[in-house]
Amino acid sequence: MKIAVVGLGYWGPNLVRNFLGINAVSGVIGCDKDPMRLEKIKVRFPEIETTLDYNAILKREDIEAVAVVTSVSSHYAIAKAALEAGKHCFIEKPMTATVAQAEDLINLAEKKGLKIMVDHTFIYTGAVKKMKEIIDQGRLGDIYYFDSVRVNLGLFQHDVNVIWDLAPHDISIMDFLLQKKPTSVSAVGSCHVGNGLEDIAYLTVNFDNNLIAHFHVNWIAPVKVRTTLIGGAKSMIVYDDMENSEKVKVYDKGIEVKTQEGVYETLVQYRTGDMYAPKLEQTEALTLEANHFIDCIQNDKSPLTDGISGLNVVRILEASEKSIKQNGKAVAV
Amino acid sequence: MKIAVVGLGYWGPNLVRNFLGINAVSGVIGCDKDPMRLEKIKVRFPEIETTLDYNAILKREDIEAVAVVTSVSSHYAIAKAALEAGKHCFIEKPMTATVAQAEDLINLAEKKGLKIMVDHTFIYTGAVKKMKEIIDQGRLGDIYYFDSVRVNLGLFQHDVNVIWDLAPHDISIMDFLLQKKPTSVSAVGSCHVGNGLEDIAYLTVNFDNNLIAHFHVNWIAPVKVRTTLIGGAKSMIVYDDMENSEKVKVYDKGIEVKTQEGVYETLVQYRTGDMYAPKLEQTEALTLEANHFIDCIQNDKSPLTDGISGLNVVRILEASEKSIKQNGKAVAV
Amino acid sequence: MKIAVVGLGYWGPNLVRNFLGINAVSGVIGCDKDPMRLEKIKVRFPEIETTLDYNAILKREDIEAVAVVTSVSSHYAIAKAALEAGKHCFIEKPMTATVAQAEDLINLAEKKGLKIMVDHTFIYTGAVKKMKEIIDQGRLGDIYYFDSVRVNLGLFQHDVNVIWDLAPHDISIMDFLLQKKPTSVSAVGSCHVGNGLEDIAYLTVNFDNNLIAHFHVNWIAPVKVRTTLIGGAKSMIVYDDMENSEKVKVYDKGIEVKTQEGVYETLVQYRTGDMYAPKLEQTEALTLEANHFIDCIQNDKSPLTDGISGLNVVRILEASEKSIKQNGKAVAV
Amino acid sequence: MKIAVVGLGYWGPNLVRNFLGINAVSGVIGCDKDPMRLEKIKVRFPEIETTLDYNAILKREDIEAVAVVTSVSSHYAIAKAALEAGKHCFIEKPMTATVAQAEDLINLAEKKGLKIMVDHTFIYTGAVKKMKEIIDQGRLGDIYYFDSVRVNLGLFQHDVNVIWDLAPHDISIMDFLLQKKPTSVSAVGSCHVGNGLEDIAYLTVNFDNNLIAHFHVNWIAPVKVRTTLIGGAKSMIVYDDMENSEKVKVYDKGIEVKTQEGVYETLVQYRTGDMYAPKLEQTEALTLEANHFIDCIQNDKSPLTDGISGLNVVRILEASEKSIKQNGKAVAV
Repeated sequence: MKIAVVGLGYWGPNLVRNFLGINAVSGVIGCDKDPMRLEKIKVRFPEIETTLDYNAILKREDIEAVAVVTSVSSHYAIAKAALEAGKHCFIEKPMTATVAQAEDLINLAEKKGLKIMVDHTFIYTGAVKKMKEIIDQGRLGDIYYFDSVRVNLGLFQHDVNVIWDLAPHDISIMDFLLQKKPTSVSAVGSCHVGNGLEDIAYLTVNFDNNLIAHFHVNWIAPVKVRTTLIGGAKSMIVYDDMENSEKVKVYDKGIEVKTQEGVYETLVQYRTGDMYAPKLEQTEALTLEANHFIDCIQNDKSPLTDGISGLNVVRILEASEKSIKQNGKAVAV
Repeated sequence: MKIAVVGLGYWGPNLVRNFLGINAVSGVIGCDKDPMRLEKIKVRFPEIETTLDYNAILKREDIEAVAVVTSVSSHYAIAKAALEAGKHCFIEKPMTATVAQAEDLINLAEKKGLKIMVDHTFIYTGAVKKMKEIIDQGRLGDIYYFDSVRVNLGLFQHDVNVIWDLAPHDISIMDFLLQKKPTSVSAVGSCHVGNGLEDIAYLTVNFDNNLIAHFHVNWIAPVKVRTTLIGGAKSMIVYDDMENSEKVKVYDKGIEVKTQEGVYETLVQYRTGDMYAPKLEQTEALTLEANHFIDCIQNDKSPLTDGISGLNVVRILEASEKSIKQNGKAVAV
Repeated sequence: MKIAVVGLGYWGPNLVRNFLGINAVSGVIGCDKDPMRLEKIKVRFPEIETTLDYNAILKREDIEAVAVVTSVSSHYAIAKAALEAGKHCFIEKPMTATVAQAEDLINLAEKKGLKIMVDHTFIYTGAVKKMKEIIDQGRLGDIYYFDSVRVNLGLFQHDVNVIWDLAPHDISIMDFLLQKKPTSVSAVGSCHVGNGLEDIAYLTVNFDNNLIAHFHVNWIAPVKVRTTLIGGAKSMIVYDDMENSEKVKVYDKGIEVKTQEGVYETLVQYRTGDMYAPKLEQTEALTLEANHFIDCIQNDKSPLTDGISGLNVVRILEASEKSIKQNGKAVAV
Repeated sequence: MKIAVVGLGYWGPNLVRNFLGINAVSGVIGCDKDPMRLEKIKVRFPEIETTLDYNAILKREDIEAVAVVTSVSSHYAIAKAALEAGKHCFIEKPMTATVAQAEDLINLAEKKGLKIMVDHTFIYTGAVKKMKEIIDQGRLGDIYYFDSVRVNLGLFQHDVNVIWDLAPHDISIMDFLLQKKPTSVSAVGSCHVGNGLEDIAYLTVNFDNNLIAHFHVNWIAPVKVRTTLIGGAKSMIVYDDMENSEKVKVYDKGIEVKTQEGVYETLVQYRTGDMYAPKLEQTEALTLEANHFIDCIQNDKSPLTDGISGLNVVRILEASEKSIKQNGKAVAV
């Protein structure tokens, strides 16, 4: 099978490299409106075809799948055209700019019997897979909170704010690990560099049963932080993606509540136990992900990060948009 | 002069120790309703007087000042009685349980010509004083955000939630460093251990001109984090109180915005410069603070952390209380 | 029983504080040649007796034990006098200035039926006790090396070089954990501040079976480092005393050697497994140690850090002295 | 000009990639005895020529330079043949297996008017260049010591021990920064995995004026450490290559020695000042190095890491070999 990669900016070339490394892929076609980018990709990967014309790709029968790696606002139109032309779709995160668009693509793919896979790369990392395993074993007990910080002095993306740019990583991790439906979302943020887009923002996602999730995303921080705390009744996880070798630490620390005599007094006793940092798989996530996409197409499997998981993320993003315009008022999801 | 310390739980004995070390203090009187605590303090500091009866203290003319180190809900009544009896007041943070109480104490002290000093201990640390110096020199440029995280697996306090317990530290630091009036506050939180008090919470404080402050406070985290980011147009600060020797780091990193041709494109260029960790004063903050209180009384000076700074903190706490009950709706301050 | 603490400089007052906290100790007598130090200790602990005259202590029958906390060169004479007067001895590390002195004290104590305990404080920490437990369970397999770094910008001690000052901590830990007899010692060092004493030094201790131990001690380093690596065939330990909560980390990393075809090729395959940081006991080591000393006296037990362990350390120190004068030539122990 | 890269194991392909990126290089020829490696490099870089026959390269007049990236024991023969054939030489570190070989190559190159450049990659990093600048400005004052630790659980190299494998990095950095001639070397080590080569070793290099350098190299450590301390009279450097953004920290900490009254007492007063982490150049060192080699050839310049600097490193390595066989006896350089 052959696959087209549409959009050859920062991330597209990584997909080209990974699809080229898969035996089942007999050809990669690069597509972009910018001839300079096509020239550049040709120098780096002389064996690929390139084209300025997306329609030409849609018409070719030897191309079975399209990877959409363009700006968020164009995902829907490009993916829709691909699905209508009978091609499977790999879509960069966030899947679409609106919930309605995501739902439309999911319905269309279902009708056509095609796969949608959303590029939630972190789901394929050794760290996230290990955390999923630990949580599914029930080792955390009831989960109390999910707290994520993703900040750095980073290159601005121009068509979306910092929530749409950075939070999809953490929201997709949360959705994958917790598998819970949120009830409401509130978000606040602030912008400072004159383009009207928030460059720092805080997002709260509420669930039933006192579970709370919170995300701090920030383009104007002096240091790079990528830390998630997941607190449970029996143990807790610290996931630090900046750590070289011990990204996931499990703390066997729990809280025992005892009620003393007296009406208002609550004594909380802490058990503080061992910490353990499990060995993590080292394979590049994008390699696993690219192979998984091809495997899903060829063997009619459902992708781990399918359209529904893409939609779950967009649902929270869209609600955050409404909340931020109402000064952080909680918006039902 | 003599000074009474009322409330001899966890923090009171530290005040006793520090007041005993000041030459100008000729005697310390310990007061608590619990006879066991009085016995314990006598063993540790045989030279102090103790009493179960607060009224006896109010009547004594040789006692010029009272330190109120009791639970938050009792601060107002104890401090008010002291002021009415003509005694200066040192009050544990947060100053009072409501804004109205704080205002009342400030008015009363003014009428009586007495000092109120609030125990915002961090203001007296080498780290906070150095940050104040750097900010006052204009080295950060316009300040964009103040982001603080104070989390740990800590002993619960029973009469207030985690915001009232932990956030006063960070709010008082922010108030001292930024000297800005907030416009509104929103807060969300969650409780998990059965006493109805939030054990994890997020607080956002809004200001004019896109300045935003945010506080994460948490009693149920597996690791101890005490980190504040202060982002400015010209440089940024990372303040990590868990660092042994380099608590304050100043990053000479700024953002230059240039507009490229085209309407929607904004190019952000980063200057990434040096980092510098200034030497910090090492004297114990509480020692400096206790001496400052005595100095303010004897030389009729205004305390650095006076009633107004105590009120500023309570104002934000009270607004957070209202917001948290309305699911994070912004509450004007 | 009563106990005398001889030498009230930096460390002696900590012993006074701990002995005062033991119920079985009915009195503490402080002794120093410097009247100022006696005054100072009286202010801090009004309940203790003090004396300038060590002979008075030797003559008193109510004093059962003497703690020797003076400079290294005086340990021998003071301890010997105490033993001859029938008193048990607690001796600050390093035990004596020569091997002959240590052997003499051990023989004298044995003849008199008295206890000698050497103040190797680290042996009583939660971290070292946990490492001992792990090693005794055989979890490291054959031990390959013990590598220790103890450096800082520290207060110079004036009568010994940096090896005698800092290395006893690490040598006593190694002796306790490994329980092996060294074969030879080599040491190199350098001095820079004009007193003729090495302020930076490296010490190598050789054992049979390719076990090697190495110590870096340094008074003129800009940062404080306290790290020990213990490498074994089955797993390895990193002990970092500067870590707040995870001082001991056990790495389940081992090396499997396979021989490929061909004579000279050795393929080394790495298993890289989990890391685990066990919960450590938090009680102050000196408190445990002081109690242990009293318990050994009252119940005729042998101290964990007895004269022999003190001698083992001095043996290595004395050999290092000879080696350093011969430019690092290996000196048999 | 064209350049041949001889030896296409782990490091050679990186050189191929970098030489291909230089405009002045019109062709790269890959050479190895192993046909599999040639096939592999062809897949990765289809534009290069490959050959199994080194003699063919020597005969070609269009090839101006040879990069020797083979095992240490073969460096001398391959480089000598290249020089005799009139080609400039880029030689992987360590330059040769003996001092005599290095001297022979230097003489031969001089006679022929050819360049030798040794691949001391670290010299071209932003971190080392910045440290050189700081030291050359005299900001450290007299240098007291250079202490380096380079340990990890690493892939064994089979024809040399851990000193020859890892220490050349640190020795070349020291040689470049300090520009001092050592007087003697001592080394100790130990081997554990059955191939007779030391897998852990400690190397001491002595200089005049109490300057001391020390290197800990280790293939069997559970964690990766790359830390160098450079202590000076006026300030000190900590260089941590594992740090993401602050690899070089300069501590403005100095020592002032005052002599008190009394013969034996030396009081040392510490000034502890600010720390500063300068911005470092980010360009890949090997890219700069490859360009520098071509520039030296084309413009007849002397390489920063020429044969002499290669010889300086080999001199210390050869002395370490002798010392290790005599249990660490100091060997004159």
